[in-house]
Amino acid sequence: MKKLKNDLFLRACKSKQVERTPIWIMRQAGRYLPEYRAVRKKSDFITMCKTPELAAEVTIQPIDLIGVDAAIIFSDILVIPEAMGMKLEMIESKGPKLYSPIRLASDVDKLKTLDVSKNLKYVLDAVSLTKKELDGRVPLIGFAGSPWTLMTYMVEGGGSKNFSEIKKFIYNQPQAAHKLLERISDGVAEYLSAKIEAGANAVQIFDTWGGILSPCDFEEFSLQYIQRIISQIKRKDEPVIVFAKGVHYKLNKLADTGADVIGLDWTMDIGKVRSKIGKKVALQGNLDPTVLYGSEEKIRREAIKVLKSFGKHNGHIFNLGHGILPDISPANAKFLVDVVKEESEIFHR
Amino acid sequence: MKKLKNDLFLRACKSKQVERTPIWIMRQAGRYLPEYRAVRKKSDFITMCKTPELAAEVTIQPIDLIGVDAAIIFSDILVIPEAMGMKLEMIESKGPKLYSPIRLASDVDKLKTLDVSKNLKYVLDAVSLTKKELDGRVPLIGFAGSPWTLMTYMVEGGGSKNFSEIKKFIYNQPQAAHKLLERISDGVAEYLSAKIEAGANAVQIFDTWGGILSPCDFEEFSLQYIQRIISQIKRKDEPVIVFAKGVHYKLNKLADTGADVIGLDWTMDIGKVRSKIGKKVALQGNLDPTVLYGSEEKIRREAIKVLKSFGKHNGHIFNLGHGILPDISPANAKFLVDVVKEESEIFHR
Repeated sequence: MKKLKNDLFLRACKSKQVERTPIWIMRQAGRYLPEYRAVRKKSDFITMCKTPELAAEVTIQPIDLIGVDAAIIFSDILVIPEAMGMKLEMIESKGPKLYSPIRLASDVDKLKTLDVSKNLKYVLDAVSLTKKELDGRVPLIGFAGSPWTLMTYMVEGGGSKNFSEIKKFIYNQPQAAHKLLERISDGVAEYLSAKIEAGANAVQIFDTWGGILSPCDFEEFSLQYIQRIISQIKRKDEPVIVFAKGVHYKLNKLADTGADVIGLDWTMDIGKVRSKIGKKVALQGNLDPTVLYGSEEKIRREAIKVLKSFGKHNGHIFNLGHGILPDISPANAKFLVDVVKEESEIFHR
Repeated sequence: MKKLKNDLFLRACKSKQVERTPIWIMRQAGRYLPEYRAVRKKSDFITMCKTPELAAEVTIQPIDLIGVDAAIIFSDILVIPEAMGMKLEMIESKGPKLYSPIRLASDVDKLKTLDVSKNLKYVLDAVSLTKKELDGRVPLIGFAGSPWTLMTYMVEGGGSKNFSEIKKFIYNQPQAAHKLLERISDGVAEYLSAKIEAGANAVQIFDTWGGILSPCDFEEFSLQYIQRIISQIKRKDEPVIVFAKGVHYKLNKLADTGADVIGLDWTMDIGKVRSKIGKKVALQGNLDPTVLYGSEEKIRREAIKVLKSFGKHNGHIFNLGHGILPDISPANAKFLVDVVKEESEIFHR
């Protein structure tokens, strides 16, 4: 395998010495880039996911355009429910819709067992192709939703405001819920292993909806399945990142899942989290994504605040605390990347 | 003034000895009650707020029907922006809409200064009438939105997903934002003072959107104005409750605002929060509202978990961690109230 020209991100994930703090941006291959919108104009979102050439093209765009230190494969977490037999549609400006949502134990039984090499071959092909086209410039990240987050979508049938259906499901049919979580977990573990096999240098698990659970429920319905996946992933040295949005209450336990990196949203003080959970894991984050609406002066000030808060330690990957918003100017995103590259050096001397 | 027959809630707010834990439920005067929907059928939401007889009727319903230990006046936090000159509409199943949202410093200047005795007389009349009709059975709570939460609605023009407009406003026009926050704060302080004058036994400040801010921004744009209001409220012994949803990071500072009670959402461990911030304030909360979708057994188990977590101390007011959802069965809400009354006694011996 070709040696990476820039492995800052991978070294930081393992809390090793780096010359400066690496940065990538969640949803960096996305709508805020005119070059992305040009591709998107010609084909719908799901087709882009399913066409390796298009997925590779948009995955690489932010490497060229804004200069981030890692690529993340363009895809969607809901390819898994789709591969398990649910009909998926992306409705413009409304979000995803999964038809015939899971409500009963019998709905769980009707789902197909995930066959990654068959039903998700297009993702693996996209990973291999992207890896080839990246030509060793930066590492490539693969990702999946957490079992809890995927189940939430599968039961709600899409996004939700109050998450009533998923809560009814776990409280009134806990056995069916755990059965589904197990099935998803095993599928996700296989999926992430296959991505690594296809060339991903690291993987991230997104627990977007972890934060809607009480601390006890989080342990029961999310945390243990994240742990299960991490223990099952077939990997050599490839780091695992867990990003559980809104989960401010079980950071120590998240750090004990076997993950190499914990991603933080912007409501946490990254320095305080570091003091609390020590050096067992690296931390990723956590600038408020809306800071990119501000002036260059504001962006610089806030980026430095995050760097200072983390302090002079190894094990920091700079990122936003959530995905970049579609109406952010690409110039501001690039400015952030430049500022982090420039201002982080003094924290690594 | 008539002596209260049940003052458990007020004693708990002041961390005094009680025989059992008092309970009330956020949004207890609401859509989950068929008796509420019968009133609502005959007049729209804003008319209900503006007609003291109707407001009093629905405020008292949950006292009779589910047996809570405090009433909270039926109203809406957005009566303040309306009284400052913004056109307000409640759009069925979509939420509130404020027309011509604030975007520029000149929009702030155009707002009227709040004249509580003139523009919000209807709320004060509703408080007096409800107080009279309650006839000393339970205390009456008045409430307002926090300046940050009200400004968020005024700038977004309603609810929001990404809160882009309010963040652009505070980052790019911080002076105008602070000017608006000051104006709202002074209005809210006057409004809460007038409610107490009209008969409210306690007041609650809802910071519904505090949790979308980073810790630093929360201090700058929300916390200091909550503190300002509390220092300005004219009161004798009436407690002030602050509920800042999602604000897990500045609990110590919230406890130092002069509030008597801090409300917690369901993502926090109430026992851990008590250990952390000590006895300076009472705590209110914090059962996950969706637990009321569960069986009676589940509701009992989870309610006891909250009581146990808080432990054998004074200064707990039982509540949900957020408003009761409209599709909860009233029987389950009543069951929760009964369980808390029954199971909490042993924590106060």
